[in-house]
Amino acid sequence: MRPLTPEKEIAALSDRYLPELEISLKNSIPVSDSNFYGLMRYHLGWESVEGTSTKSDTGKRLRPLLCLASCEMSGGDWKSALPAATALELIHNFSLLHDDVQDGDQTRRGRATVWSIYGVGQAIAAGNAMRVVADQALLNIKTSNIDHMSAVKAGEELTLRYLEMIEGQYLDMSFESATSVSTDQYVDMISRKTGALIEASMHNGSIIATGKAGFARTFGICGRKLGLAFQMRDDLLGIWGNPQLTGKAVGADIYRKKKSLPVLFLFQHANENDKSWLTDTYRKDVISDSDLARILNLMESLKVRDFVQSEAEKYAEAAVNGISELDISPESQQKIQAIANFFVTRDK
Amino acid sequence: MRPLTPEKEIAALSDRYLPELEISLKNSIPVSDSNFYGLMRYHLGWESVEGTSTKSDTGKRLRPLLCLASCEMSGGDWKSALPAATALELIHNFSLLHDDVQDGDQTRRGRATVWSIYGVGQAIAAGNAMRVVADQALLNIKTSNIDHMSAVKAGEELTLRYLEMIEGQYLDMSFESATSVSTDQYVDMISRKTGALIEASMHNGSIIATGKAGFARTFGICGRKLGLAFQMRDDLLGIWGNPQLTGKAVGADIYRKKKSLPVLFLFQHANENDKSWLTDTYRKDVISDSDLARILNLMESLKVRDFVQSEAEKYAEAAVNGISELDISPESQQKIQAIANFFVTRDK
Repeated sequence: MRPLTPEKEIAALSDRYLPELEISLKNSIPVSDSNFYGLMRYHLGWESVEGTSTKSDTGKRLRPLLCLASCEMSGGDWKSALPAATALELIHNFSLLHDDVQDGDQTRRGRATVWSIYGVGQAIAAGNAMRVVADQALLNIKTSNIDHMSAVKAGEELTLRYLEMIEGQYLDMSFESATSVSTDQYVDMISRKTGALIEASMHNGSIIATGKAGFARTFGICGRKLGLAFQMRDDLLGIWGNPQLTGKAVGADIYRKKKSLPVLFLFQHANENDKSWLTDTYRKDVISDSDLARILNLMESLKVRDFVQSEAEKYAEAAVNGISELDISPESQQKIQAIANFFVTRDK
Repeated sequence: MRPLTPEKEIAALSDRYLPELEISLKNSIPVSDSNFYGLMRYHLGWESVEGTSTKSDTGKRLRPLLCLASCEMSGGDWKSALPAATALELIHNFSLLHDDVQDGDQTRRGRATVWSIYGVGQAIAAGNAMRVVADQALLNIKTSNIDHMSAVKAGEELTLRYLEMIEGQYLDMSFESATSVSTDQYVDMISRKTGALIEASMHNGSIIATGKAGFARTFGICGRKLGLAFQMRDDLLGIWGNPQLTGKAVGADIYRKKKSLPVLFLFQHANENDKSWLTDTYRKDVISDSDLARILNLMESLKVRDFVQSEAEKYAEAAVNGISELDISPESQQKIQAIANFFVTRDK
């Protein structure tokens, strides 16, 4: 069988898994007269502010996709991992609700963020409730045919990785005011902020399929590395992405003064003159269009984009290599390879 | 044995339970180089901003106190409920970290709030992490000698009541912009915001002791009513409390335009003239000292304070009556009575 392109492989997985996942997600949000759960349905892309049904961009649902695929690649029935996959997507969306407050972002997926409509307090509350709904979704694991110990391990993994994710968010915010951040510190931060929950996604899919701790951890570690690759590609798209595909302006992360990998690399490798100019520029309230142009030029001359892309590919390759030690089918190996390729070639 | 005064009863319980609880709380916060957990230790009253050890006001620790007392009154060894009590106090403090952001409060227990020092984003993150630490603390229940089903039930109860608490916080914020709020709506709100977690406290102490669902629920319902009584007394102290004891100015909740029970009662029972003046006054940006004086006068003439106190006592009495149906010792009955009395007579 000829391998699918990365995009087609992801599309095939999405077509197969996502309709049932969407039903499971919808069933997990309580039905209530209160508008409170309407905030969540709005955030998840199912409802307008007025409460009417919409079909907005719901995001890529990558974490549940990886969880369900990992279950199947580990030899399990992917449907048995639906409660775990549902919990992961809800945890992810909980973090987005709070992230948008923390970063002051006005839009997400082309729509106004919850805090920008309902206020900071309500967005915090909606995020907190989403987190509980996630816990409750995971409890549905009891009704599927999974042995008790695997269910407990999946719950512990989720809690642990979720705490790491919050630590990563803390570090990310700390970096905003830090004078210098090393590449190692940056990798540690994104490993927690993005990598941890993707580790949980693949670990939990696999532990549900097999009950084998070591086997599932290999899947988990693959997920962690894919998460790093994903985030580095994200950093690249945040500066050089096609605005029509990403929904972000060219240089968006530079205007926001985000200390992403390209910027850290630039600070580390610029000559003294440029570095001192950069330091002054990043201290200004607003980065001007001509500042942006000069920063992009500096990045071009130092081949920053190539560096970031090759770092992302390095982690993607390491992710695939880790899995290849396991006794899984060639089709599954091929699938992991396609997912990894997608993570580092995607344009949105 | 002559019954102790309510204050002495609470003090005796505190002396017996709190030293071990404090150790359990301290052990539950991860030790790490990162300052992240320092934020939590600061909030919990153990450390200064600089990270040196302090003995600040830690709050009353009422929820763990009720949990441990309920375990003992139900015939159990109170130490077996320490993980559950620890989780409850951490959940409560998680909610305080977020509440302070949501309400914009600059001080708590005489110290600057976390968000006012570290910013909104970090306070949200610290709260979220505290919530995970609470989950992990509850998992220690496995190491104590409790049967598996009781441990599962305690976990489910905590999740359920915690979701109610967040719903209550949502309702409380919604009331700020609502034009009219009925007493029933208010009671529903505080039942969730304050009552739910106190229900979980007494339920979980009792289920750990007995494993009996119905018995533990009776304790839980007692807790819910005590929570209502506690909140109503809190509303009273928020207006008429002694500033030196409460740490709040006279009329604090009126200056803050908080829609607490005294204010709702006043709006409902004022004559048309006064009501229209009140409506205008509550629409102003700032309530002046002379506005406060007139509001306090109106409350005095309508005996609002007596109404609030008698409502609080009504719920406290109902709480005690509910428990009296159970087969528990006369000493335990007496203890519940003293706790209920304390809730409605406390001055801080």
